[in-house]
Amino acid sequence: MSFRIGMLIFPDIMQLDMTGPHEVFTKLPDTEVMLIWKTLDPVTAAGGMRILPDVTYDTCPDLDLICIPGGGGMNPLMNDPETLDFVRDQAAKVRYVTSVCTGSLVLGAAGLLRGKRSACHWMSRDMLSEFGAVPDPARVVIDGNYISGGGVTAGIDFGLTVAAEVFGEDVAKSVQLGIEYNPKPPFDAGTPETAGPSVEQAARDAAKDRQAARLDAVKQAAANL
Amino acid sequence: MSFRIGMLIFPDIMQLDMTGPHEVFTKLPDTEVMLIWKTLDPVTAAGGMRILPDVTYDTCPDLDLICIPGGGGMNPLMNDPETLDFVRDQAAKVRYVTSVCTGSLVLGAAGLLRGKRSACHWMSRDMLSEFGAVPDPARVVIDGNYISGGGVTAGIDFGLTVAAEVFGEDVAKSVQLGIEYNPKPPFDAGTPETAGPSVEQAARDAAKDRQAARLDAVKQAAANL
Repeated sequence: MSFRIGMLIFPDIMQLDMTGPHEVFTKLPDTEVMLIWKTLDPVTAAGGMRILPDVTYDTCPDLDLICIPGGGGMNPLMNDPETLDFVRDQAAKVRYVTSVCTGSLVLGAAGLLRGKRSACHWMSRDMLSEFGAVPDPARVVIDGNYISGGGVTAGIDFGLTVAAEVFGEDVAKSVQLGIEYNPKPPFDAGTPETAGPSVEQAARDAAKDRQAARLDAVKQAAANL
Repeated sequence: MSFRIGMLIFPDIMQLDMTGPHEVFTKLPDTEVMLIWKTLDPVTAAGGMRILPDVTYDTCPDLDLICIPGGGGMNPLMNDPETLDFVRDQAAKVRYVTSVCTGSLVLGAAGLLRGKRSACHWMSRDMLSEFGAVPDPARVVIDGNYISGGGVTAGIDFGLTVAAEVFGEDVAKSVQLGIEYNPKPPFDAGTPETAGPSVEQAARDAAKDRQAARLDAVKQAAANL
């Protein structure tokens, strides 16, 4: 009996939120990984990459792990009953409920994070509080059977953490060696603290409209809970 | 006039070789990123993900940067005249010739790496010598207008290095902050040296057939140069 992982995809997803852990997951022994969306039509990610879903909400089999990635396109999902119902339904049955980046806000909107610690992209992390969750700045957060990764590239650290949880450290290490994950960022700018105020401000300015829309969507979703 | 980046995709590609730098590239100012293959049909990556090419060898416009990712599916490309002609033709015109992981072996097979230092996935790195290239264990290698990344996840470090080369450090840092690239691998197993002999041996055993086929293909391609 294989370990079955379902990852949500959706228009305007940040593809690396999903493709990082997907690469890790597909290297695990006896593991099936499927991409889930409402239809089987190609989904266009934020950067324009077009990816095909494998199953729909209706045809998705029972999963052992569900993963919700993030990106601009998760904003509308927080108030989409069809998505929230699907996520709640799977969350009640799986062994692990997981997210990468702002995907945790969708779990929050589904009412699944009350009192739980969770990671999120640094720029949207505080919004978790609106759902009764406890924002955690760690790169990967484990709270019971909930495992979450921080922003975008944290998905790789998250994937390896899941690998170790489910299959043990030796398996996780062999996947890490396979993907030569010995990161050497050319700059130390991966957090607001190390990037410095001007880089942080530029990032906040560029994301201003999306973040305002996100906060509105979060508040509306929280009111509906 | 935008900066135009073309990335090869092909059946059995290691998608993270491509999706990592793709996420970086699509966040650069005034930059167009396109996926190139022989047809516009969906390409199935090694882990099963299906991705749509944007242009074909025939419809690909002139590029500023070409990038060849790796994965098992690059084995046949080393002796595929259609691919080698396309790569050689573009390499003569672009500002930057680049690769991630075993994609460098395709550049070698095209006769483009003679006397050049290049990165490659650790398990296949020595094969670069067959093409007259100098294998370099660095995570990202710059030799003139040739920029190469090591195995799989090195593509993110590679992408940020390219970002800094073309657009300056501030742009690279803002992308790094956007993708929260502050990696914290849960284990220190990203190189054969740190992973230890048993994990390394298991990885080599699992890849034995593919590596044997790769070495045959490399020798044949080198003989054709």
